Amino acid sequence: MGSIQPASGLGEDTILVLVPRDPMREVINGLETKFPGVKVRWLNTKVPAGLMRTEDMPLEIWDGVTIVCAYQIPEASLLPKLRFVQLTSAGADQCAQNPLYKDEKITFCTSNGAHPPQIAEWVIGTWLSHQHQFGKYGDYMKKSYWEPAYQASFEDSSGLRMGILGYGAIGRQCANLAKSLGMDVIAFTMRERRTPESRKDDSYCVPGTGDPDGLIPSRWFHGTTKEDLNNFLSQDLDLLVICLPLTSSTRNMISKEQFGILSKKKAFLSNVGRGGHVHTADLITALEQGQIRGAAIDVTDPEPLPNDHPLWKAPNLFITPHVSWVSGNYWSRILNILEHNLLALSDGTPFVNKVNKELNY
Amino acid sequence: MGSIQPASGLGEDTILVLVPRDPMREVINGLETKFPGVKVRWLNTKVPAGLMRTEDMPLEIWDGVTIVCAYQIPEASLLPKLRFVQLTSAGADQCAQNPLYKDEKITFCTSNGAHPPQIAEWVIGTWLSHQHQFGKYGDYMKKSYWEPAYQASFEDSSGLRMGILGYGAIGRQCANLAKSLGMDVIAFTMRERRTPESRKDDSYCVPGTGDPDGLIPSRWFHGTTKEDLNNFLSQDLDLLVICLPLTSSTRNMISKEQFGILSKKKAFLSNVGRGGHVHTADLITALEQGQIRGAAIDVTDPEPLPNDHPLWKAPNLFITPHVSWVSGNYWSRILNILEHNLLALSDGTPFVNKVNKELNY
Repeated sequence: MGSIQPASGLGEDTILVLVPRDPMREVINGLETKFPGVKVRWLNTKVPAGLMRTEDMPLEIWDGVTIVCAYQIPEASLLPKLRFVQLTSAGADQCAQNPLYKDEKITFCTSNGAHPPQIAEWVIGTWLSHQHQFGKYGDYMKKSYWEPAYQASFEDSSGLRMGILGYGAIGRQCANLAKSLGMDVIAFTMRERRTPESRKDDSYCVPGTGDPDGLIPSRWFHGTTKEDLNNFLSQDLDLLVICLPLTSSTRNMISKEQFGILSKKKAFLSNVGRGGHVHTADLITALEQGQIRGAAIDVTDPEPLPNDHPLWKAPNLFITPHVSWVSGNYWSRILNILEHNLLALSDGTPFVNKVNKELNY
Repeated sequence: MGSIQPASGLGEDTILVLVPRDPMREVINGLETKFPGVKVRWLNTKVPAGLMRTEDMPLEIWDGVTIVCAYQIPEASLLPKLRFVQLTSAGADQCAQNPLYKDEKITFCTSNGAHPPQIAEWVIGTWLSHQHQFGKYGDYMKKSYWEPAYQASFEDSSGLRMGILGYGAIGRQCANLAKSLGMDVIAFTMRERRTPESRKDDSYCVPGTGDPDGLIPSRWFHGTTKEDLNNFLSQDLDLLVICLPLTSSTRNMISKEQFGILSKKKAFLSNVGRGGHVHTADLITALEQGQIRGAAIDVTDPEPLPNDHPLWKAPNLFITPHVSWVSGNYWSRILNILEHNLLALSDGTPFVNKVNKELNY
């Protein structure tokens, strides 16, 4: 939870919700009942090309708006009375250049914590599909082929080791699932997390999931140098999960040298961070040479991946088109976070996911 | 744990291990060191057709054997000095007609608990593969097709409900994984489990897995009638897991009427029990008519499934050839159980997985 805000009440506010789905009547009614006088305006931003750009939205949509729930905010002159922004993304970098963002009187909160359940399911689901050879059995089904007894050979996850690069909300739910499989979990973060307090994560968390207190990792590594990273990668990993934000210092962090280290136990690579974390040509080589047992990637570099790109044909690789964050629960979680933060704005209680404008998250 | 045995010591014993893998030197040495004087004899029972039959084994293999670790025991005259049997199966019905089994001086223990990690991984892996449409993305990969943004639609498991038919060691690890996904779990057993004590399961359990105390289910149903079963199935299930033993009263327990009940939320069916639990023709109809969203079955009726059987072509179905129990850890877990029980035999401490010869498990 963020810092305590002075109570400012709600009642004269107009909330603009810009999300790619039809208005959720019960959510709108709920907010208008809970905060009498407040008006909720909702625009479905889904267009054939993807998401409607703010500059293509009708100008009158911004009239009188004081609170926005959206992925992006428009030019500052359109929102003279803005006082709170609930971003629908886990980061805030897409707003960093906007004067509204720089205005210290306007609070921004992210939707960190709305993604972990589905992304961690994607990570564990692709891992188990690989380990239990579901692809092979899918092919056998097409041939109506029943493999004779005692031909199969698998390794279950009990006692195997998952290494997590970036122990935020997503990494913590991956850890929670891995723990229930009987895996050992080790974590890597840039900053040292020496004290119990420093290991906590106070972002929004779906009850019963994640590891908000940071208790699951058996060991916690940290650092910013290549030696720090390589030391972490050399800890006999069976599964490496990348769930970091992409910065200039994390670009291509998994390249030829790192694949060499991961070859020790032929780790499986799972990337739900950004395609730029992994050197694409080196990934293809590592897969072709069997340095790693396989990989599942929801993000690629470049993205979208062109039809003629050689990555499509690499062996033991599973690719999805940046969809691991998608869930029918996604928007209702974001609206839960919005409701929490409206209450904070109204009553002066702590916000959840308040952006640190120096770090942009 | 079973009842306390009088200590009888080990030292004159010959242990015969009959499993389909090469001798594990470190296990043999470990046992012979821990129990001085004991001899371990090991036969790899893997043959091209599957498992070697006891009647095909060389006769001298039985000479002087007092302890057997195997799936099956031979005719009684071959083992006049037998005093303990460690079965490699979770049940004991394959021995039920053998006079050695009926001899109350000979203790039989099962390998209950060696299967749950891998079988629960199979259950959750196939469920997540279905929910996240991995099959579709596998097909897209073959065409090097990157699906455009905002086309995907998935449902994550958080808040969904898993119903488990048969809350033994396997069901309990399924529950443990489901809990970490944020699912609600409800259980069904034949007998009522009213007290905390009655909800416990004292079979072997890989540390950190399962639900040995029976604390996970939010509700616990029981009964032996069709009405009891149907009442359980009508609890808005998203995922039904079958992990019961097959008896005359559980055969075809999921048939046309039950699929009608499951159609309410279009449950996903996961069968890791026996093929005979599900009426095959009714399953095909339920899939073709979309009464259920899909199914994953590791067991079929008939089994093996003939090449021309219509079940192979049913929609939204994933079939594997009775392999969910396979794991590289399987035999070492069984040998752990054997070692525990040899200690019990030697020191008079409690056995684990001791067979109740009236129930055959």
